[in-house]
Amino acid sequence: MAALDAAGEFETIRTLLAPLAHPDYARDLLDDVAVLPSRAGFDLVLTKDAIVEGVHFLPDDPLDQVAQKLLRVNLSDLAAKGAEPFGYLLACHWSPRCGWPEREAFAAGLKADQDAFGVALLGGDTVATPGPASFSVTMLGWVPKGQAVARSGAKAGHAVYVTGTIGDGWLGLQAARGRLSLEPERVAALAEHYRRPVPRVDFGTAIRGLPTAAVDVSDGLVADLAHVAGASGVGIALDLEATPLSAAAHAWLDARTDPQAALETLVTGGDDYEIALSVHPLDEARLKKEADRLHLRLTRIGEVVAGKGVSVRYLGQPVTLGRTGWTHD
Amino acid sequence: MAALDAAGEFETIRTLLAPLAHPDYARDLLDDVAVLPSRAGFDLVLTKDAIVEGVHFLPDDPLDQVAQKLLRVNLSDLAAKGAEPFGYLLACHWSPRCGWPEREAFAAGLKADQDAFGVALLGGDTVATPGPASFSVTMLGWVPKGQAVARSGAKAGHAVYVTGTIGDGWLGLQAARGRLSLEPERVAALAEHYRRPVPRVDFGTAIRGLPTAAVDVSDGLVADLAHVAGASGVGIALDLEATPLSAAAHAWLDARTDPQAALETLVTGGDDYEIALSVHPLDEARLKKEADRLHLRLTRIGEVVAGKGVSVRYLGQPVTLGRTGWTHD
Repeated sequence: MAALDAAGEFETIRTLLAPLAHPDYARDLLDDVAVLPSRAGFDLVLTKDAIVEGVHFLPDDPLDQVAQKLLRVNLSDLAAKGAEPFGYLLACHWSPRCGWPEREAFAAGLKADQDAFGVALLGGDTVATPGPASFSVTMLGWVPKGQAVARSGAKAGHAVYVTGTIGDGWLGLQAARGRLSLEPERVAALAEHYRRPVPRVDFGTAIRGLPTAAVDVSDGLVADLAHVAGASGVGIALDLEATPLSAAAHAWLDARTDPQAALETLVTGGDDYEIALSVHPLDEARLKKEADRLHLRLTRIGEVVAGKGVSVRYLGQPVTLGRTGWTHD
Repeated sequence: MAALDAAGEFETIRTLLAPLAHPDYARDLLDDVAVLPSRAGFDLVLTKDAIVEGVHFLPDDPLDQVAQKLLRVNLSDLAAKGAEPFGYLLACHWSPRCGWPEREAFAAGLKADQDAFGVALLGGDTVATPGPASFSVTMLGWVPKGQAVARSGAKAGHAVYVTGTIGDGWLGLQAARGRLSLEPERVAALAEHYRRPVPRVDFGTAIRGLPTAAVDVSDGLVADLAHVAGASGVGIALDLEATPLSAAAHAWLDARTDPQAALETLVTGGDDYEIALSVHPLDEARLKKEADRLHLRLTRIGEVVAGKGVSVRYLGQPVTLGRTGWTHD
């Protein structure tokens, strides 16, 4: 760690971040680097996501939750690959609003999720910015050699599943912004999902070897499945009515005059951090068994077909999504 | 790569960044992750540095040079460890001023330094920010197992050396800001050093096994040596008059009324990206031979002593540095 942060870079590192350091590889954050021994028989999986105040989190979001979201969006990328997370590098671009109490809260959020997900801080940088705060994480995980799940293995005839529920990310953003008229406990549950999504790390490692392709749902279910379709050279047919919804999302949907349009909003909304995957029909039973074992909802939402792109159906009828770029064939 | 960048995230990745991707491990940037096979007999060295517009680079700095500085400050960290760089993950926090031509320039700068230093893009994220632009890189390199140079091996009696020249980073910042009255070619040379420092990668790998401790000079020679002293549990005695200066720095120094104060400014200024190191007296000859072979200036600037912290002498007399935190014993 080395850079300019007049508001207390060294104090931040020594007091707040050093206690989070990996015991073996982070050199107590006293060095500029982390040194990681190779692990025979394993591949290293790396991902890097950044979040910006006012874009990916709200200016009044508590910084402990921002820290947790930062780790979780990166853990979600590893989960989709079947990788076991173990550590991360962190860049904090502190804005003037990030005083000592805010930094303490940020570190407390990191600590909570380090404990929850079994990761530790390996190194990084802390700098000051006059602009909005932003943060980035490079998350590292291990996967047995050659077993990282690709996006390119989906084939016509494979089934398409998604974990958890879809739409709570988008609804949660509306809830956090105070733009949702639902009962307070539903609003709170949705905002919580937006601020602290739950990456499917355990499921991702448990089903290793089963998915033919997988992706975490960050840009939106349709957009992320389109990445899979493109990388695999296939089409994906999605049944809108099969979209798994939370109780809060159901309550919201029930109050819409156009349920189809409402569902379209949810499947293109993003920030869900579920895993969408394709699986060979012969492996569906094993996949469901693992989900059951982890008490995780798992829903068949469509299938892989010949062609290209994502085609959406609603009650059997083809649908053209309003959002640019996503149309049925 | 996945995030919100309305100004063209996917186009930026596809057109500008995908051509920079590592041919084996980056999955053409079509995936959220990079997958890296373990390398038997080697340790992976990781470092992460961030730079912010208005803090680490100037708002009118050309973005190709900003990209190069970003890679070089990270390469400098690897150089001090004796690591051989091979790839990096990148987070771009684009501000509104980063239109397409600016992004093209940024990518061109990355390309130039990928070729110069033998690294390739492994993955990352590109997001939009309303604030000043900022960027971070996680740089990866290999070092033979157990041979990463530590900061903690300096012992009393070891000699202290530094590569290149000291002070051009600080003078270069003044030059880039138009605050330096020297001949135009000197101003240009100093500004160039500030914008595109030269990381000592070749020297770092060539001398592997020789330094007992090493650090790259980013915070300032005295501050960085203080890190070494602290980690090693020793003191370091520095001879101010031995500080290696460029011709431009000499010209600047000659115009000062108080040369001692001027030297103090240069040794606390930072942004030099040279390697400062300690070495056992028996290894000094081999160290110098490697520097000669690479036509790299290498200067003995002091020695490791019992005690703690960095003590500074000028013409044999103890000096108390004006900057808080750095005083003689």
